[in-house]
Order: sequence, then C-alpha cells, then structure tokens
Amino acid sequence: MGCIVFLIQCDDNKGLLSNITSFFYNCGFNILHCHQHSDVVRKKYFMRIELSLKDLNTSRKQLENSFGEFSSKLSLEWSVHYSDHIPRMAVFVSKTSHCLYDLILRQKEGEFNCEIPLVIGNHPDLEYVAEQFKIPFYCLPVSKENKAEQEKEALALLKKHHVGLIVLARYMQILSRGFIEEYPGKIINIHHAFLPAFEGGNPYGRAYERGVKMIGATAHYATADLDRGPIIEQDVDRVTHEDTSEDLKLIGRDVERKVLSKAVRLHLEHRIIISSNRTIIFSAGA
Amino acid sequence: MGCIVFLIQCDDNKGLLSNITSFFYNCGFNILHCHQHSDVVRKKYFMRIELSLKDLNTSRKQLENSFGEFSSKLSLEWSVHYSDHIPRMAVFVSKTSHCLYDLILRQKEGEFNCEIPLVIGNHPDLEYVAEQFKIPFYCLPVSKENKAEQEKEALALLKKHHVGLIVLARYMQILSRGFIEEYPGKIINIHHAFLPAFEGGNPYGRAYERGVKMIGATAHYATADLDRGPIIEQDVDRVTHEDTSEDLKLIGRDVERKVLSKAVRLHLEHRIIISSNRTIIFSAGA
Amino acid sequence: MGCIVFLIQCDDNKGLLSNITSFFYNCGFNILHCHQHSDVVRKKYFMRIELSLKDLNTSRKQLENSFGEFSSKLSLEWSVHYSDHIPRMAVFVSKTSHCLYDLILRQKEGEFNCEIPLVIGNHPDLEYVAEQFKIPFYCLPVSKENKAEQEKEALALLKKHHVGLIVLARYMQILSRGFIEEYPGKIINIHHAFLPAFEGGNPYGRAYERGVKMIGATAHYATADLDRGPIIEQDVDRVTHEDTSEDLKLIGRDVERKVLSKAVRLHLEHRIIISSNRTIIFSAGA
Amino acid sequence: MGCIVFLIQCDDNKGLLSNITSFFYNCGFNILHCHQHSDVVRKKYFMRIELSLKDLNTSRKQLENSFGEFSSKLSLEWSVHYSDHIPRMAVFVSKTSHCLYDLILRQKEGEFNCEIPLVIGNHPDLEYVAEQFKIPFYCLPVSKENKAEQEKEALALLKKHHVGLIVLARYMQILSRGFIEEYPGKIINIHHAFLPAFEGGNPYGRAYERGVKMIGATAHYATADLDRGPIIEQDVDRVTHEDTSEDLKLIGRDVERKVLSKAVRLHLEHRIIISSNRTIIFSAGA
Repeated sequence: MGCIVFLIQCDDNKGLLSNITSFFYNCGFNILHCHQHSDVVRKKYFMRIELSLKDLNTSRKQLENSFGEFSSKLSLEWSVHYSDHIPRMAVFVSKTSHCLYDLILRQKEGEFNCEIPLVIGNHPDLEYVAEQFKIPFYCLPVSKENKAEQEKEALALLKKHHVGLIVLARYMQILSRGFIEEYPGKIINIHHAFLPAFEGGNPYGRAYERGVKMIGATAHYATADLDRGPIIEQDVDRVTHEDTSEDLKLIGRDVERKVLSKAVRLHLEHRIIISSNRTIIFSAGA
Repeated sequence: MGCIVFLIQCDDNKGLLSNITSFFYNCGFNILHCHQHSDVVRKKYFMRIELSLKDLNTSRKQLENSFGEFSSKLSLEWSVHYSDHIPRMAVFVSKTSHCLYDLILRQKEGEFNCEIPLVIGNHPDLEYVAEQFKIPFYCLPVSKENKAEQEKEALALLKKHHVGLIVLARYMQILSRGFIEEYPGKIINIHHAFLPAFEGGNPYGRAYERGVKMIGATAHYATADLDRGPIIEQDVDRVTHEDTSEDLKLIGRDVERKVLSKAVRLHLEHRIIISSNRTIIFSAGA
Repeated sequence: MGCIVFLIQCDDNKGLLSNITSFFYNCGFNILHCHQHSDVVRKKYFMRIELSLKDLNTSRKQLENSFGEFSSKLSLEWSVHYSDHIPRMAVFVSKTSHCLYDLILRQKEGEFNCEIPLVIGNHPDLEYVAEQFKIPFYCLPVSKENKAEQEKEALALLKKHHVGLIVLARYMQILSRGFIEEYPGKIINIHHAFLPAFEGGNPYGRAYERGVKMIGATAHYATADLDRGPIIEQDVDRVTHEDTSEDLKLIGRDVERKVLSKAVRLHLEHRIIISSNRTIIFSAGA
Repeated sequence: MGCIVFLIQCDDNKGLLSNITSFFYNCGFNILHCHQHSDVVRKKYFMRIELSLKDLNTSRKQLENSFGEFSSKLSLEWSVHYSDHIPRMAVFVSKTSHCLYDLILRQKEGEFNCEIPLVIGNHPDLEYVAEQFKIPFYCLPVSKENKAEQEKEALALLKKHHVGLIVLARYMQILSRGFIEEYPGKIINIHHAFLPAFEGGNPYGRAYERGVKMIGATAHYATADLDRGPIIEQDVDRVTHEDTSEDLKLIGRDVERKVLSKAVRLHLEHRIIISSNRTIIFSAGA
C-alpha cells in the first residue's frame, strides 16, 4: 500500500488545516495520517500529510502543479515524496564496523525503505563488510593535501549512484563546508556523545575524565558548524565508576546504533522538517 | 488562554478530517491542536481537536447544538470539554501515603487542572495528610457486612461534591460492579505490577518469587473485571537479586507515582478515548 | 590479561569472605574482583571471585585440588573458569535473522569471549547468514514423528563440536525435557514478552489485544517448564495505540537483541549463579 | 538491625581484601556487605564494608583505635559510620517547592535515614512548606552587600543544629568558596541539566534553543568550581519539538526529584567515596 507524503511549512494562520485537508479531500484522497505543529514562539506552522497512493487519479505532475498553485496562495513551502521512489543511501565509514553492519542489516530486513548502492571509507578496513553484502566499496583515503580532490571524487560517486541521503556512520574525518552544502539536510552524522556535551574529539575519554554517570549519542544533520547541526535523535545509557573509557566505547556502541538507525528511519519516512537549527519530528506513534 | 477540546470517534470514512476541521474553521475557530488515529483493524476513526476558547463567538449551547446537528449526519460519537470547567477529583486511599501526597502536590503546583474536594479512606491512617492540605477526609471502613452501605455513603459524598473523576491511589479494597458502573471511564486505578503480569494481590511478593529483573506499575480505568480494564500508562524500573520483596515495594513507589500521575494528567487534559478495552492516547508531545 | 573466575555458593556463615579471600591470598593471588550476595530469606551465600591468571604459580589441577580440599571443610559448591578456555556456543534458529546476526556480530567484534562452531535451524531459511560468516549450518526440520530422532542428531552435533552453551535465538520449536536436561543451566532462551506476562505463543498479538503501553523481552535459562526458567535479563520499550501487532514485532526486535546479548555476555563472563529458579547476577559495573 | 559502615581508600596492593576482611572476622564481625573497586588507571583501591552492629563486642572507641592502628600499617584512609547515628540534613531553597517536598516526604516515609532540623531559604516563599511539616524555616535573603554576613549566619545555624549534610534543593544562589570549604564533600547540589551540557544559568532555555531531544538533571557535590564538582547521579527524560522551555521546566521537575533523592540516599547510606573529582558509588543492588 504505497503512500504520498507532503511536508509543509509556513507562517501560522487560521484555517490552514481545514484548507489544506480540503484540498486533498477534493482531489479524492483519503488522508492516512496528518500531523501538525504550531511553533508559538516563532509563529510558524508545520504539517505532514500522508495520503494513499492508490487514490491518485491524476498524474503526479498534475498533482504537484495543482498543489503548487494552491500553495502559492497560502505561501507554503513544501515537498512531496512517493513511497515507490526508493531513496539511495550512501554510507561513509572509517574503521569501526558496528554502525555500518547495523544500517545494512536494517535495510536488508525491511526496516529501511532505501537502497545502499555504495559504501565509502577513508580507510580500507571495512571493505570486507560491504563485500559480505555485495555492496560496492570505495576507499578514498584523506590527507591534508588530497582532501579537496578526494571530496570531489566522492561527490562524483554520489552523483553517479543517484544518492539522496548520506550517512556518516562513525566517519572520523571532517567534511568541508563545500561538500556539506551540496547536500543540505541530507547528511546525517552520529556523534558519540550527548550533545551539546563533549562536542569535538574523543568524547568517551572526556566523559570518563568528567566522571559522568550516563553516556549518550546524538544523531544530527551535518552542517558546516561541526557537531552543531539540527539534532534528530538522542539517547543515553548508564555507566559506573567501574567503566574505563574503553568500556564506555563498548557500551556506547549500542546507543550509537539505536540513535543512528532511528534518525535514518525518521528521515527515510519523511518525518522530519528542519527549521532554524531545530527539527520537527512527526513520529509514527502519535 | 482557555481552550475547548472535542473528542470524537466514528467509523472510518474518507473526508472526516477535512469535513470536521472545516466545520470549526467556518465557526471562526483557530485549531490549536488536532490529532487523529485510524484503527485499521477495527476500521474506526478517532480524533481530538483543541480550539481556542477566545474564538468562541456564540454561546456554548449554540456551539454544541450546531456541532450535534453536524455530527449526526456523520454518525460521530463525541464529547466536548472546556478548560475553564475545573473537574473535581476524589482520591480513595488505604494506608500508604506516597500516591496521595504525589497527587495533592501536583495539583497544588499546577500540574493538574482540577480540584480535590475530598479524600476517602477505608482506614483512618491518612487523615493527617488530607488535613495538612485542608482537604476534607472521610473514613469509610469496609467489611463484608457493611460494604454495600459504605459504597452507598461514598456515592452520596461523590455526588454531593460533584466529583467527575475518582482516583484509586493504592486503595486496597475491591469496588463492586454497581459502584464502578456509576462512573464508567471515570475511575483510574493504579496496579502495582506490569499488567497482565501479576494480576490480583501481592504483586511485589510474587515478582520477588518469580525472580523478575524489572518491576512495573500500570494505571488503568477500573472495570468490573478486576485489573483488566483499559490500560492508560505503564512503566518499569530495574531490580536485582539483592532486592527483597520489601525493597521492591520501595522501588515500586516511584514507578507507581510516575505512572498514576501521568494517567491522571492525560485524563484531565482530555487526551484519552476508550475503545474496546484499549485506550487511544493523544499525547502532548506529538 | 587472562583471569580465573570462581563461582561459589553455600549456606551463609560468619567468616566466609575472610576465609575464602585468605585462601587465595595465601596462594599468591591478586583478587581483581570479588562480589558477594547473602540471601537473607534462604540463608544462602554466593560469591564470584576473579583472579589474575598470571599469579597462578602451580598447575591448574593443583589449584583445583587445593581449593577442593579447602572448600569441602566449608561445604562450598563451586566451579572454576579460565579465560583462556574459549567456550563454544551453538545457536538454534528458525526463520527470523535479527538475533542470529546480532550474536554473530558481537562475537566477531570481540564483545563475546566464545566461538560459534555451528548454527542449527529447523528451517533452511537462515543458512545464508551462517554462510556469510563461514559458520557451518545444519538444517534439522522437526515434525511430531521425527522429533526424538532430530534431537538425537542435534545432541550428536553439539557433542562433536564440544558445545558448552546453547542459545535459542528465536528458535520456534519446543525442546524435549530430555534434551534440556542434557545441558542444565547451559541453554539460554529469548522469550519475546515481559515474563510472566504472555507466556506461551504469539505474545505480540496478545500484547496488542490487551492494549499494553510497553512490550518487553526476557532472556532465561530453558527448563522443562516452558517459559518458567530462571530469568537472566529483561527489558521493555514503549508502544502506542498506533502500533499494530506487526509494529510490535518490529519494535520488539531491538529489545530482543539487547536482552539476549546481555544475557549471553553475562553467562560467558561467568557472572551468573542459578539458585532456586532465580539468578544471582554479579554485574560488571559494581 | 543496626550496622557499621567502613569506607576505605588506599593505593592498590595485593592482599588488601583478605587482610581487611580478616581484621573484622577476627573482631567477631559478620560482614553483611563488602564492595571493592580497583581503579586500574590511578592504581587506587576503594572499599565499603558493612558490618552488623550487634556483633560489636568492644566500645566503638576501641574498635576505631584498633582499626586505626591496623590501617596505619596499610596506609588506609578511612571513615566509619554507625546506623544509629542519625545524620542531620539542612535543605537550602529558593522559590520552587518540588524538590523540598520530595525530600521531606521521603524522609517522613522512612526512605532517608536522617533528620531535617531546618530549612534555609533566600526567599520567604517556601516557609509554608516547612511549616506544614513543623520544620523550622530561616529566611536569609542574599544581596551582593550582605552575602558574607548571611553566609556567616547560615553557618552559625548549621553548627547550632549539628548539620552533617547540606542539600541545595534548587537554591538559586551561588555559595562562596569559603562556605563550601566548611563542608567538603557534604554539600549536594542539583543542577537542572545533563552536565557537562548547559553548565551555568537557564539550562532549560538553552536546551530549548539547542533543540535537544532529551533533558537531564545532575546531582553533584558542590565545589568552588561551579557545576564542576564530582557527579553522584544523572538521569534524563525525553522531550519533543512541541515542548516550550516552560514545558521543559515541568518535565524536568520529575527528573530533578528522582536524581536528587537518589544522590541523597546514596550519601546517607555511606555508599559514596570521592576521589579526584569522581565518585565511586557502591550501590545497593550489586
């Protein structure tokens, strides 16, 4: 049962819900799900509407033109997503395999509606993982000297593979502003700390030093401002004085997997709107 | 900023969201929040609409008549709730004070939009708590012989105090079917176990015997079928082999408080619809 | 840095800790970790002592003889485990792959100190998973008629592969009492419910019907009494009225993985003592 | 069933556990609980021993002299605590009542082994709470000009009431270094954020701005370095884009209560050793 998802944002005004839902009703759609959010501080309105694809009785182009016309009267910003368009997700990795395996397995087991056409590593260590699942692996080692060149190469690969989402699965290399701006709102990073605590390098070592009683992980959209992009999901787990910083790394792996996979799923299901460095998350269970 | 909440349920049909929101838009209302749920198994539709009270430009009676007429065409079951009508909540207790204190304090600190006009105990033990907050306390000890009589007395008190919600805050006495049916969907009980595990008496002792690694609590609407009413909220906490059944009791108190107060708040904010022994919960954060 | 673990249980008595630690001190050992538990209800004493292997200045046989002599004076029941003895774990599966993958990956990534010499399935579906990691897979389909024979075959394989731990990773077939008694305290099962709630079949469907607000999973030692063996670990996750029983299955997978892997790790690190259908868990972080 | 608790720390060495437990065994004690921790990074050893008070067959003075002599040979730092010595806890407050109520109620219900001889507020707002429970309340408003003087007054009150533990229950005033150094390791503060995130003022407002998906609270010992003292306990709760900074405050109250009460209980049960700005927590359930 395919579906169509509209993500909409605009200034808050009376009648938006009624007007927009009437538009779709008049087009013959059954509305499967409809979530709204009014940001009373910034006076903004956000909406996610999920329609049944089988109710579509025009071409997609016609639907988009027709909604485009309607939306311009109400000054809506919007995007539309069809569930039969399978997004293509690239995974960037370095040396640790747990997040890569987790993403591949969830995709294979049907939890993610996407394809994984390639894995890019700045080290060759995880080529064997990609191979186990017959996914092309590209090794693009990065040094100060060749960074610009290698990013160009990576961008070429992403274009060639029609990639729509990039996941940095413990990719321990900072992407340039230029690279990031090629994929605004389409690069998800996992930071192995409960942001804004422990921004930057070696968060587990610093968490150990500070003597925290919980460690966390944060999935966020990558922006030019390192570890400061819009947060999608966070979670934590308990640690004790017994745990060395090596133990924190081990415990943290489960939190990282959980947080990153949740964020990826939310993105792939078109449940996220980014607004002013914050995310609106229209979760399934509500 | 007062509000009006409509809770609606009906058979699922195309156009419900559009039709209902248009009704309110045409009445001049701004829709503050609108949640829906389609039960695809039972083909039922559920809705919670929150409107701004200041947009009401007719009498409440007129609004209700007008919506009543509209709703009968669509075969909606519905109720309406005005935030300036402060519900009156009675608390039933026995000997343990933690839930009673918690409810009173949350009411006092503004977390619950209600009044607590009376506390009823089947033991005199907690009279001092009610007194500390100047709430009338009625002691109605129950034996096999006087149960019918005491319930009648309790019902009279509830009527006299215009009580709209009854909370059984670790009230260790089983209410008769007749009593419960006087307040359908208006009696919330806390069971000190993760239902359906450990229905009935002495759940902590039985949890200890079974060697569980977590204990829980369940808030549910009371029905004639003991511990089997619609579940509103559940939570758990970890325990270990070190914990005796006395320790479980202590640990459980925090879970009970948390679960019961959450359920009461959801009820008071008109976020719950009961359907076929299940609850639809329209939570705030979504 | 290898280690030796002693697990000890006996009637509770004065001086046990002092006597036992003095024994090891006099043998020249540094005690890395020492956990105790006094069950005041049953008047039993439990202990886990972790020693540094490099302090061993006799043969293992001599250590065991010497401790055996010492222990018989104090009427201790005990077992000893050397970290350089790598246990061999067999995984039994049916059709769902998530727990199998999780166990294999954790073993590969160094989280489990064990080998996985074989996977046994009553269906051929997961052969490809075993193959990806070059683990021998044996398909032993079970019917009423051939059950005894197939279990005999399985036992022969387990003996041949020197298996010390059997993990039922969503193995949807009931093992006979005879089979289970061959491996007392050495078969770990994952039940996809928060026991004792929803013992038996189809727990997610029944959880949906009951309208619970959390679902759980329980790892326990298998005993002849189905789903009633000693509980090792439990956990839960939230669900809502939106979640169908299919959704519960999906959400449950993460809980199952977490609970099962935790239980297996505790077992492999010799942190569990079974006593009267309860487990004493000497966890790392304390 | 009274008990004696010894807290011990020293450089790590072979034989400490055996030697120390033998000392107590030779004095005729049954060891109820014994926890150890070896900090392998700093090469330090920590221990908590709980003895049965009824086994004491000398005077307390004699026990302490005798252990003092023994400990000086092993260069132990130690303290001893008798459960029949009821510590006296002062609570410092400003205007929000939830932590104060929580502490008082837990003390009243037997969860804390302490007395609360006084509450000190820098505002008069919470006098009524203290009065409800007949606890003396002292209002000491603090300005730049009178700060030194008011702290002197507070110190005099604390001495007069023989206070052994000070809890800053959302006390919104910074204590001077001089004051804090009068009670080293005896002042517990609750910070309404998941430290080290959001040190300093207005953490909920800043958490809202950053768009975090969880908020937390941290209980720590107060040191001259604001919000940087040794962490005792932390916890978090989920928030969403719907929650304004006012909502975060409300949600945070439950986390604050939970975290602060846990920390206070750990302190009162002598389960904490401070070492190099970290805490060793010997928790009950292990």
